[in-house]
Amino acid sequence: MSNAIPAAAKDQPDASSSSGSKSAVDLPAGTITVKSTFVSRLVSLLAIGLALSLIFNSQEDASLYDPLKACVGFSILAYLITVNLIPILAPEFVRVGFFGKDLGKKDRPVIAETMGAVCAVVYLVSMFFFIPFLFYKYYVTSTSGGGNREQGYDAAVELLHKGRALRMFPHSKLAEYLAALLSLFSMLVLGVADDLFDIRWRNKLFMPAIAALPMMFVYYVDFGVTRVVVPEFAYKVFFPESLAYPTTIDLGALYYVYMLSLAIFLPNSINILAGVNGLEAGQAFVIAIFLLLNDALYILPSRLFGLPEHPGTEAHLFSTYFTLPLVAVTLALLRFNWFPARVFVGDTYCYFAGMVLAQVGIVGHFAKTLMLFLVPQVFNFLYSAPQLFHLVDCPRHRLPKLNTETGLLEPSRVYFPTKPRKLQTLLLRTMSIFKLIHLEYDSKTGAIASASNMTLINLILTWTGPLREDRLALVLLLIQGFTCMVGLTARHTIAPIIFGRDNI
Amino acid sequence: MSNAIPAAAKDQPDASSSSGSKSAVDLPAGTITVKSTFVSRLVSLLAIGLALSLIFNSQEDASLYDPLKACVGFSILAYLITVNLIPILAPEFVRVGFFGKDLGKKDRPVIAETMGAVCAVVYLVSMFFFIPFLFYKYYVTSTSGGGNREQGYDAAVELLHKGRALRMFPHSKLAEYLAALLSLFSMLVLGVADDLFDIRWRNKLFMPAIAALPMMFVYYVDFGVTRVVVPEFAYKVFFPESLAYPTTIDLGALYYVYMLSLAIFLPNSINILAGVNGLEAGQAFVIAIFLLLNDALYILPSRLFGLPEHPGTEAHLFSTYFTLPLVAVTLALLRFNWFPARVFVGDTYCYFAGMVLAQVGIVGHFAKTLMLFLVPQVFNFLYSAPQLFHLVDCPRHRLPKLNTETGLLEPSRVYFPTKPRKLQTLLLRTMSIFKLIHLEYDSKTGAIASASNMTLINLILTWTGPLREDRLALVLLLIQGFTCMVGLTARHTIAPIIFGRDNI
Repeated sequence: MSNAIPAAAKDQPDASSSSGSKSAVDLPAGTITVKSTFVSRLVSLLAIGLALSLIFNSQEDASLYDPLKACVGFSILAYLITVNLIPILAPEFVRVGFFGKDLGKKDRPVIAETMGAVCAVVYLVSMFFFIPFLFYKYYVTSTSGGGNREQGYDAAVELLHKGRALRMFPHSKLAEYLAALLSLFSMLVLGVADDLFDIRWRNKLFMPAIAALPMMFVYYVDFGVTRVVVPEFAYKVFFPESLAYPTTIDLGALYYVYMLSLAIFLPNSINILAGVNGLEAGQAFVIAIFLLLNDALYILPSRLFGLPEHPGTEAHLFSTYFTLPLVAVTLALLRFNWFPARVFVGDTYCYFAGMVLAQVGIVGHFAKTLMLFLVPQVFNFLYSAPQLFHLVDCPRHRLPKLNTETGLLEPSRVYFPTKPRKLQTLLLRTMSIFKLIHLEYDSKTGAIASASNMTLINLILTWTGPLREDRLALVLLLIQGFTCMVGLTARHTIAPIIFGRDNI
Repeated sequence: MSNAIPAAAKDQPDASSSSGSKSAVDLPAGTITVKSTFVSRLVSLLAIGLALSLIFNSQEDASLYDPLKACVGFSILAYLITVNLIPILAPEFVRVGFFGKDLGKKDRPVIAETMGAVCAVVYLVSMFFFIPFLFYKYYVTSTSGGGNREQGYDAAVELLHKGRALRMFPHSKLAEYLAALLSLFSMLVLGVADDLFDIRWRNKLFMPAIAALPMMFVYYVDFGVTRVVVPEFAYKVFFPESLAYPTTIDLGALYYVYMLSLAIFLPNSINILAGVNGLEAGQAFVIAIFLLLNDALYILPSRLFGLPEHPGTEAHLFSTYFTLPLVAVTLALLRFNWFPARVFVGDTYCYFAGMVLAQVGIVGHFAKTLMLFLVPQVFNFLYSAPQLFHLVDCPRHRLPKLNTETGLLEPSRVYFPTKPRKLQTLLLRTMSIFKLIHLEYDSKTGAIASASNMTLINLILTWTGPLREDRLALVLLLIQGFTCMVGLTARHTIAPIIFGRDNI
């Protein structure tokens, strides 16, 4: 949730009230002014040309056709379309009730909400168009060359070839791809429904599990791999009497529970670590970049240096096809969502991006590696737990508070009008000792009067002191990037040692 | 489009203004009061029991498991869920801006719009849950009986069996199923977007084509059947020099154009033949029923009388799996959308239902038969064409007009302040001769002053005279049913004669 009033059309955006803003002319609320220069148009044209040449690479020989290049091409197009659509659609979104007030600014401007829906639609449509290119080599017969498909006396032979090529068509991969898109569509619908209706937590918490159903089924049918690699020492601890050391143990149904949990956790955790301009899209961007780096470690060695192909190449290519367009639309979104935000991303974006990341991890069978990239999210969730589960009071909004004099953000606080209970006091004092919380005491009774809210964002602010919104976002994203870097390094240096070998 | 003010949240629903309505107490706008009696609850419980027993039919032997029964079970559940969800969600929809005024009533009550979204979501979720049941027999190994899967020394053998069963898994069918669901999800998103933003015609006309892309691709890969049966005489007319009579001709790419046209035409045509309580859902219901009857003619003979299975059984089972849940959610919707409507269906419903019907025809490869069931839609489109393409003026709304004194609906009219051009006059007079339009003349100049609007609904009213809204809907649905009946009969009596044989 962005730092916005819920998008319910309770009060209409009132452009005239934002008298402090410069553009308080007659423009409809949510208008974004974009300068279009000659250079920017030229760059766009060149980018379109590049994208098309990548999409239609080496058509003359279908067997050489590279879907990865096409994916890069489609991502470029997706970026360009999103970056041009958002300014067009923002006022429309405000008009129909998707808007919020940016509480992190002095004049609390009304800006468009739920722009993640634009990203999601562009993403999905470009994935639709990508399908024939992804499977190009399977259904186009190799002809005598020059790209001309014989229509003459060779036609019958060609038909036979075609029949054969189609019989080899990887329907299971297609089903996988389609199931992944289905799950994403479900999340788009869920996200928009949440932005519209403000669905209650208990109702929406398990909805991603329904969205993940087709993917789970395809996983069951196609892989059925529920074995995970365990470190030798861990195995010896739990099964000391065992003589042989199996490199994997079968988690069975538990593995499906784990995958479902991931599908539930990821969208919601991105949705919780939010409320600062650019943070929702920024964290998804950073995680996606590291997923791509991880994929590259599998794909590139064989491509660039002619090394033998890693057995996981296929899965990591698949992961790239889903991650790259996400990076593209997210980058476009960030151009408008970065401080000072001109649009909000909405729950739609958080759910959608979270689900893309979750399913990339699931289908690519590197769900454990994915967790290494989610340290800030997991920390934020655990750290928030006392408030989420009402051990400590939880105010409706826990966003950092704007100090209107300095223009800087300060940690927001939860106040205790009555003296906290013993258990609460113990918890709060313990956290305070480890600098995990900032407490204020009642000057008379000495009881705890208030505490900083338990979110990673507030925690950073208690450590650094007040920050401007963009600096705060930057600090958070740097932490994300740093933990991801540590995770990626650990995955490819320490993990092989612990697990005895690299993952196959 | 229902006879509603566009759902844009320009003015808030004002429950107090509808002072004529009985429920003008303090209930939120859009509230639907549903009586829940002991009997109705008992019936619901029994229905749930029946549905579950159908879904989990003959579990002890996977090879006997019948997905058709499960489909009936899921449809019952879908009906029950929809019928209970609509009253809960209607006020919520009104709250966030999905509402319209029913112009066909004296007091123009404000009721919830876009209830088709509820139907679509229930439909899609039940299709999600149906997936494992549809493919049950392929991934469950046959065991020694009694439903217990051996875990003992047979486990290894079982695993082998399972591996084999999974290798036989019909991934192409799964891909087909998932692609169809993807197209439906796209239409849901498009429909909601249209209800929210009132997308312009030229922008939304071709969107169903994008939604149909995955389906087209799967069709291309799996069937690639672009040959259609042509009647012998037609073939002889066009190719008189040909000696042999090929039973089919290959339409090639044209067949894909035809399928795309169908995907564009059906959703839009249902959306055009609308504006009377119960008509949108009613027509989809009638068409779906006749599709089911057509399917039954292929499926039932072998099931009931032990006749050899028709080669088209598979395709028609597939069609049934998609049509039956549509019938269920539509029936639930009709309970609230029938005169006097307490909810509107929204563009969402029209698009969604239209796409279900279109893809059933496409994937089942009986797109021609489908056209036989669409006579009123095709007629309405052709009849509307002069106004749609602005040969004759087209007012913003062409809904029948309520005569507030009689309470009956009368044809709405298009007025000509200036004398119509010669071509227009010729067209209008010719139509008038064939009783296809009702004209009024200026008493002084003798020029055409006004004409009834060119929609099937207005045409019926010019023939029958003013009708109450529910009677009008009934007449239109009877016409739909009658033409469908004629079409179905023709399909199975005349068509085999014309085409020389029955379709395989």
